[in-house]
Amino acid sequence: MYLERLREEVFQAEESIKQTGLVNHMWGCVSGFDKESSLVVIKPAKWSKEIGPSDMVITNLDGEVVEGSMTPCADVMTHIEMYKTFPDIGGIVYAQSLWATAWAQAGRSIQAIGTAHADRFFGEIPCTRSLRPEETESDYEKNCGLIVAERMRHRVPGEINAVLLNKHGPFTWGKSPMDALSCAEYLEEIAHLAWLTYAIKPGTAVMPYYLMTKRFGRKHGA
Amino acid sequence: MYLERLREEVFQAEESIKQTGLVNHMWGCVSGFDKESSLVVIKPAKWSKEIGPSDMVITNLDGEVVEGSMTPCADVMTHIEMYKTFPDIGGIVYAQSLWATAWAQAGRSIQAIGTAHADRFFGEIPCTRSLRPEETESDYEKNCGLIVAERMRHRVPGEINAVLLNKHGPFTWGKSPMDALSCAEYLEEIAHLAWLTYAIKPGTAVMPYYLMTKRFGRKHGA
Amino acid sequence: MYLERLREEVFQAEESIKQTGLVNHMWGCVSGFDKESSLVVIKPAKWSKEIGPSDMVITNLDGEVVEGSMTPCADVMTHIEMYKTFPDIGGIVYAQSLWATAWAQAGRSIQAIGTAHADRFFGEIPCTRSLRPEETESDYEKNCGLIVAERMRHRVPGEINAVLLNKHGPFTWGKSPMDALSCAEYLEEIAHLAWLTYAIKPGTAVMPYYLMTKRFGRKHGA
Amino acid sequence: MYLERLREEVFQAEESIKQTGLVNHMWGCVSGFDKESSLVVIKPAKWSKEIGPSDMVITNLDGEVVEGSMTPCADVMTHIEMYKTFPDIGGIVYAQSLWATAWAQAGRSIQAIGTAHADRFFGEIPCTRSLRPEETESDYEKNCGLIVAERMRHRVPGEINAVLLNKHGPFTWGKSPMDALSCAEYLEEIAHLAWLTYAIKPGTAVMPYYLMTKRFGRKHGA
Repeated sequence: MYLERLREEVFQAEESIKQTGLVNHMWGCVSGFDKESSLVVIKPAKWSKEIGPSDMVITNLDGEVVEGSMTPCADVMTHIEMYKTFPDIGGIVYAQSLWATAWAQAGRSIQAIGTAHADRFFGEIPCTRSLRPEETESDYEKNCGLIVAERMRHRVPGEINAVLLNKHGPFTWGKSPMDALSCAEYLEEIAHLAWLTYAIKPGTAVMPYYLMTKRFGRKHGA
Repeated sequence: MYLERLREEVFQAEESIKQTGLVNHMWGCVSGFDKESSLVVIKPAKWSKEIGPSDMVITNLDGEVVEGSMTPCADVMTHIEMYKTFPDIGGIVYAQSLWATAWAQAGRSIQAIGTAHADRFFGEIPCTRSLRPEETESDYEKNCGLIVAERMRHRVPGEINAVLLNKHGPFTWGKSPMDALSCAEYLEEIAHLAWLTYAIKPGTAVMPYYLMTKRFGRKHGA
Repeated sequence: MYLERLREEVFQAEESIKQTGLVNHMWGCVSGFDKESSLVVIKPAKWSKEIGPSDMVITNLDGEVVEGSMTPCADVMTHIEMYKTFPDIGGIVYAQSLWATAWAQAGRSIQAIGTAHADRFFGEIPCTRSLRPEETESDYEKNCGLIVAERMRHRVPGEINAVLLNKHGPFTWGKSPMDALSCAEYLEEIAHLAWLTYAIKPGTAVMPYYLMTKRFGRKHGA
Repeated sequence: MYLERLREEVFQAEESIKQTGLVNHMWGCVSGFDKESSLVVIKPAKWSKEIGPSDMVITNLDGEVVEGSMTPCADVMTHIEMYKTFPDIGGIVYAQSLWATAWAQAGRSIQAIGTAHADRFFGEIPCTRSLRPEETESDYEKNCGLIVAERMRHRVPGEINAVLLNKHGPFTWGKSPMDALSCAEYLEEIAHLAWLTYAIKPGTAVMPYYLMTKRFGRKHGA
């Protein structure tokens, strides 16, 4: 039952990535996770107009297909490493939105420089190290996940639900696929805003810790 | 009766912030002020699709709810300090529009560098100083208002209806909520235009005082 | 009869400035010129939703109202100096579109750096000198026109139908109001393109004369 | 029969260039190629709302009209040189989209700096040398094609389906006109993304060869 709802939501979030203009011609991939059964719901490798919620593929945490007639999106091995790191995550979005991807391509973390950032993210959006040759040549998707997980592990879940994969783009996550999508949309605005700000003043300072604490607490505090 | 109309207008302006794209996923807050009764009308802390004009909250100048079943938006204490400074203001808008917020994040006032600016603002759009730790830790929202008011007080009402709160974003005001919203929209264009101009010529000079006087007078003169 | 058609066209072009997004909240002003009668058709000083083609004001070359119950837009004195300089012009548009206005605010002419530019403009889009104090304090609008005309006079009509007024924005012209509007729209794209190009390579060279001649000739040659 | 379908597709792609906003007021030109008959289908020199698929012009590889009552677009001689270089190409698009054209105006190739690039292009998008005076003065369109072909010849077909013509804009190609259009749309996003990335970090390094190989292979490998 929950898996049916998750299939529906993964499908809707995948459609929304394009409909909202977060991504136009580039790559996006959504998945959902059911902690109880340890199963992942992800879009199929091939997408077309005929595809509906029932075509979403269900895999276990080894990436083996448990239900569905299509091949899962290759990114499944990446998402699986992320679900293993934070098992309370219910959804992941990878979306090559322009501004966030530009930061990833530049290999730069996005510092917290204003209250818009701190209302959603407690601290910088970290950018990972680069993949090494041997990590790229074999088990590439899995290694992407391990490298993202390296940066996730240093964070408290809920404080920073986003990591930039160096030379790739942004991963975001949340309680559900739609929550992860909302985080991707917010991240894109923050990435845009940071870009504009540094163009005005290249050395813009990180915001003071006391202001970050106040703002994040106002939205997410007890 | 006037308060009923004000509730309607605060609601409409709040909706317009999103509908016009001034703000997409970020924060916005509109209020109105009835000078005669010294009452403030402001949006509730929680917003949803079910909310209508009658859910707007009415408070006195101490921030105490006078009418309405919902909690007022936390920013009410900020707006109140602004209404106390200029009691003839009828509406305030805070909207984290991208370009104006970038200037606020950079901590830079927006200089008057062209006639588009001077048609609406007589002189620079000032950016405030930063909040100190003790101003952030207690009475944060009120202190935001006091710091904005510091910069308002040096201006003649009507000449500059906008202040950038350092690391936060732009406050605009006017005769009514819709007037404050129109000011926010115009400010966003000016902030964009200034950004583009400095990218072409980093040391662009402030416009001469005689040209600023001529243009502002053409629109706002006797 | 021709004046009736011109009133209709000035009204349509004025509406189009906003409808096409060339200008959102800033200033725009369209006029048309009937060479035979030496009469100017221009929008009224005040604009509202109730205004229609019949509200367009007709003036002579001294700026005196010949027909119409409303006050003409103050810019009429500027446009008149331009019609006096090139009497074969049939329409003028002033529109504070963002990219072209940014160049005007920076006080920089837009050099011809690619074929997109040369398909429409034969050489740089010139930016005028600044207005002097005495030119601003009295007969401001007329002096704006004289300064624009200074730069027009050095050009062959049809080769460059655009001038940037320093610290103000772009004037464009053409055979008719709609032709002047089309020029304003094209100029905006060229201004945008030049801005992007210099950001990639600050010292981008002006295109060679032989290429400019070839391209302009392909579109406008005998 | 195939030529009829090709006429339809060239017409649709030409319309799409404007409808999708790839180009607003600037230049675009689409053609298709039927390898079997060695015939080119291209839009006519003049375009209007009355034009339909049957107005597309058919020429041979000398640029002579074989079918159609209108003059073919002058760019036909450019496209022909490209079809001669890679006879398996089925469609070409030239579209002065803003970001790609900015790179062409700056005379800069677009380096591969992220996986979004490598998912579609294996290596840099090359920018050609400039046209010499004698190449511009006579046989201009043909020489444009020869210069583009100089850069195409060094590539494996399918690996880089795009070349920037110095001071002009981007040519893209593919199996069909619609495939060439899809390449133009993707190129525009890559050009935008590269522009944003270098603004964040001017010296952004080219991506490692092993990562480029992995990504391109994932999408285009056996």
